[in-house]
Amino acid sequence: MRPKIGVFHGDPNGVGPEVTVKLLTDAEVRDRARIVLVGDRRVLAMAEKVVGQEVSCRVVDRLDEAAADGEDILFLDLPTIDPSDVTPGEATAAAGRACLETLREMLRLTTAGTLDGFCFAPLNKYALKLGGCPYEDEHVFFAREIGFDGPFCEHNVLGDLWTTRVTSHIPLGDVVPLITGERIGVAIGLAHNTLGSAGFKAPRIAVAALNPHAGDGGMFGRQEIDIIAPAVERARARGIDARGPFAPDTIFVKASDGEFDAVVTMYHDQGQIAMKLMGFKRGVTVTGGLPIPVTTPASGTAFDIVGQNIASAEGLKQAFMLVSRMAEIRRAKARAGPPGAKTAAE
Amino acid sequence: MRPKIGVFHGDPNGVGPEVTVKLLTDAEVRDRARIVLVGDRRVLAMAEKVVGQEVSCRVVDRLDEAAADGEDILFLDLPTIDPSDVTPGEATAAAGRACLETLREMLRLTTAGTLDGFCFAPLNKYALKLGGCPYEDEHVFFAREIGFDGPFCEHNVLGDLWTTRVTSHIPLGDVVPLITGERIGVAIGLAHNTLGSAGFKAPRIAVAALNPHAGDGGMFGRQEIDIIAPAVERARARGIDARGPFAPDTIFVKASDGEFDAVVTMYHDQGQIAMKLMGFKRGVTVTGGLPIPVTTPASGTAFDIVGQNIASAEGLKQAFMLVSRMAEIRRAKARAGPPGAKTAAE
Repeated sequence: MRPKIGVFHGDPNGVGPEVTVKLLTDAEVRDRARIVLVGDRRVLAMAEKVVGQEVSCRVVDRLDEAAADGEDILFLDLPTIDPSDVTPGEATAAAGRACLETLREMLRLTTAGTLDGFCFAPLNKYALKLGGCPYEDEHVFFAREIGFDGPFCEHNVLGDLWTTRVTSHIPLGDVVPLITGERIGVAIGLAHNTLGSAGFKAPRIAVAALNPHAGDGGMFGRQEIDIIAPAVERARARGIDARGPFAPDTIFVKASDGEFDAVVTMYHDQGQIAMKLMGFKRGVTVTGGLPIPVTTPASGTAFDIVGQNIASAEGLKQAFMLVSRMAEIRRAKARAGPPGAKTAAE
Repeated sequence: MRPKIGVFHGDPNGVGPEVTVKLLTDAEVRDRARIVLVGDRRVLAMAEKVVGQEVSCRVVDRLDEAAADGEDILFLDLPTIDPSDVTPGEATAAAGRACLETLREMLRLTTAGTLDGFCFAPLNKYALKLGGCPYEDEHVFFAREIGFDGPFCEHNVLGDLWTTRVTSHIPLGDVVPLITGERIGVAIGLAHNTLGSAGFKAPRIAVAALNPHAGDGGMFGRQEIDIIAPAVERARARGIDARGPFAPDTIFVKASDGEFDAVVTMYHDQGQIAMKLMGFKRGVTVTGGLPIPVTTPASGTAFDIVGQNIASAEGLKQAFMLVSRMAEIRRAKARAGPPGAKTAAE
């Protein structure tokens, strides 16, 4: 049985609906999973006009009884925004509210097991804020909504290379005090577990240094010696294949050569400069740590090109393929039961 | 008349001598300039054995009278290291002293006008230190040796894309207090002038932000608003085509797409992560600001592969081609005289 994957068209005013239409007319995508499109049918209809193609699907207003495996795409129609409130290229409260309402329903369906995971086309952080989201981003929203209180974080994925970071959307000047052994340990553990949930058996994790040339033996900073190297050693003692710290300006050269599966970076741009340069359009963001698989493309709502039918669906496709893989692995694990729970018959 | 370019084989214990032999057997290189190889003939002989090729050249022990234009390569033989002190793969005081002595002579020849500029194969910073260099790197050494007291800095070049930085080899935690309008203005000015000396008529200079997402309107830091944007405006008022600040994680995507000729970065890894990922082997380092053209490959002595004849000469070739271009432009400017000094006959 194929995994049941929810797909949300994202912010009604961005390129999300367009790229969702493109995604769902891709045969490889349609074959990969039992797809449940979730969103506002009227928003998708506008995007179908832009793209000049229609998504063949069966519209339902309740999902639970209809979600058995089948060939067609189901469309769970949630009328969340008045069509006259759709204003392409603008961040609005109406669009933000519609996104939050749809995402809440997808979280509910996924934690209930009706869906095995979901991906969503680009959201707009400012619209979410206008729409009443009290958190800094959607990752925190997801965790709070499902009542998850363990560690979680954003992973950025490009092909088979993953990154995660110890600090994120904060001023550069606030980074250094947050580089602690505990935080680095959590980031390494999240990388290890999230890559595991995506099918990596023993992910090879590189840990970046903080300072240029990894501090050059303490000449330009001692965090590598005093904090990062010991954190890497502790992770290794826990059985994680972590190595480092490596000089920030060569770690991605090694990783892109295939030496590592993941890079743990110390601050936002250390990883994002490299990842965006290597392939912005193919990038995927994963909320790692949550008990449910959730992915989205790395690119944004691209308000400047909405309605022109030029936005690429590649990122959303990669996000869809990855969440499908994660959902399959999760289901297989659930069937196998927890370790040690095997019956005598096995 | 072709420019007279000095070429030094770099640290005797690194890959420099090998890649110098490879460089000098390249017909495009031999045609580009009147080449004066400067170094220890016995060190080069060892490298010729490694590479399995000999450099065709005429050995001289004084340069001044022999430096007229001609077809052959001159070799100014400076016996600076006892051959028994050559220990491939090691940073030693003997090698560092030999490098400093050779570089001093090249600086003298270039400031005297006997050479029009020079490039050098990789040095080792630690060997220079052991050899008695009291400065943090060779750029400071050059400036002090020739008594230059204006601003100067390291530029990194990859093809037609240049970078320079406001701060360099310091701990990341020390960066923020050094992000001042004055320092940014100096870096923009150096970028403008050095690119001018390499033939760019009106170089298009992008200035990076400091914080993630350029601070996102002040949410993650205010340096973009309070310091960087005003510095860019002042540079524009001086007639420099500077723009920014741009988000650090997309500026190199734009620059590599050809939107800019140079990127001014706020700290070491902001630029180096991108540059090394885009093409480590082709990278060139230029000491910008000095009155004489000096370049070197971005890669280092590569102690782990010395003597294996596998080191690439591409970086040294790019350094040689660039210093040749800069030397030609400088000579043309010198012939034209200072602005306003034209004679009535012109």
